[in-house]
Amino acid sequence: MASAIEMLSRHRCYSGAVGFYRHQAATTACAMRFAVFTPPAAERGPVPVLYYLAGLTCNEETFMIKAGAQRLAAELGLMLVAPDTSPRGAPLPGDSESWDFGVGAGFYLDATEAPWSAHYRMYSYVTQELPALIGASFPADLKRQGIFGHSMGGHGALTIGLRNRDRYRSISAFAPIAAPSACPWGQKAFSGYLGADRARWHDYDATALVLDVKDAKRGPRILIDQGLADQFLDSQLHPGRFEDACARVGFPLRLRRHEGFDHGYYFISSFIDDHLRHHAQILSS
Amino acid sequence: MASAIEMLSRHRCYSGAVGFYRHQAATTACAMRFAVFTPPAAERGPVPVLYYLAGLTCNEETFMIKAGAQRLAAELGLMLVAPDTSPRGAPLPGDSESWDFGVGAGFYLDATEAPWSAHYRMYSYVTQELPALIGASFPADLKRQGIFGHSMGGHGALTIGLRNRDRYRSISAFAPIAAPSACPWGQKAFSGYLGADRARWHDYDATALVLDVKDAKRGPRILIDQGLADQFLDSQLHPGRFEDACARVGFPLRLRRHEGFDHGYYFISSFIDDHLRHHAQILSS
Repeated sequence: MASAIEMLSRHRCYSGAVGFYRHQAATTACAMRFAVFTPPAAERGPVPVLYYLAGLTCNEETFMIKAGAQRLAAELGLMLVAPDTSPRGAPLPGDSESWDFGVGAGFYLDATEAPWSAHYRMYSYVTQELPALIGASFPADLKRQGIFGHSMGGHGALTIGLRNRDRYRSISAFAPIAAPSACPWGQKAFSGYLGADRARWHDYDATALVLDVKDAKRGPRILIDQGLADQFLDSQLHPGRFEDACARVGFPLRLRRHEGFDHGYYFISSFIDDHLRHHAQILSS
Repeated sequence: MASAIEMLSRHRCYSGAVGFYRHQAATTACAMRFAVFTPPAAERGPVPVLYYLAGLTCNEETFMIKAGAQRLAAELGLMLVAPDTSPRGAPLPGDSESWDFGVGAGFYLDATEAPWSAHYRMYSYVTQELPALIGASFPADLKRQGIFGHSMGGHGALTIGLRNRDRYRSISAFAPIAAPSACPWGQKAFSGYLGADRARWHDYDATALVLDVKDAKRGPRILIDQGLADQFLDSQLHPGRFEDACARVGFPLRLRRHEGFDHGYYFISSFIDDHLRHHAQILSS
């Protein structure tokens, strides 16, 4: 049963509306916030749902404020759902000491190590509880769901999408952490949340996961945009490793590299329309 | 002579770039920040410049992050310039006690009352020093300048535009404080910065100013968008008073009232394209 949700605010935006909500989440055992953009087509019946997972230090507001997605989402009839990036309603010792671990850095996984395992269950939250809540509370067509995200959220979108291909029919990412087991952000997060045994990291590493995908060639094709002036490209992101892994198994990928663009939302907003069209095309077919 | 400017950061955005800058301003006798979006057309020669004045509590980043203006500005070949909303580099006693006076609340006027008069000279900064700096440092065509803004910045755009019609050829505003002498925000700001003598307030009140405009009918037409769910509409904004004054002297105004929209950037972004086209059309004629 979906828990009750509380509307915190709602803003008319283009021909739709952006709403911010809070609910008591069973998965993370604390209050969680999320944002929903409802397109005008939702007044006439269920519409496709596109989940956006944000990056380190962001929250449920970031995408709605900065990405400029609402104009075209209104036109295409896409509902946009943006969860927070970690539990925030359950203080844990040390959860705010780093910007890349703990609060604002949930990494879209289910932690197995104490004390994180009690609340840091963003994988289950995003894949189970949130879609059930959206389906119960909004005019969403759960047969047409897609997922995308940025940086840590790009990692989330790729791993969640690859592990649940029947649920998320379309996948894309901006500057994702594409091989987290091989970079400092991922190693710190996985060690802390999942422990030192690297075998447990496998299911949260897109580059490892894609090698296991059955029937890889059926796709549908993943879209990734990456700025070449991204300050984290060489040290943290490694899209080339994911690209190589996709090539090995024949998973269709369009990885676009863009001269001059950095890691921020000025980059994301520049290509957001292409991502929305990518999802709309797959979800409407 | 234009003072040296320091580039703080620069981000590729669509086919142009957003840059953030700092310089030591003579007018305000302190360091000031501003943002510039440069469209791709600026690579081939000077382009029209559109100044955006932000509202209470905002800064030079707000518009660039939240309004979603860059996509169409790139296409139309408009340079966008966004100054800060007050001096910040010169601490004064009591300047941060209120969100509607002092820091973040310069009201685009030249203060005459101590201690504000030493630094709070945003009218001169915006109308003189900033354009000179932009003209000297960027491929800007100063013969084609327009101005717009939001709330306190809508007040700024209307008053600055009306007082300098030959300099700013196009004017528009989102939810402006249209009759500041008649609302609490304006009365507090004008009393503090300009003193109790209301005769001194006249030049900073759009509704009063428009009545004095010579050759009012030549316009060009001002565009104002106002949300009808704006929480400040009845208490602070009074667009109807400005509308009445324009009608009295025949100044062409298009005031659009929008059902359901509030005072924030979800409202602004919904109509930003119309404003950019308004300015581009006048500035290209």
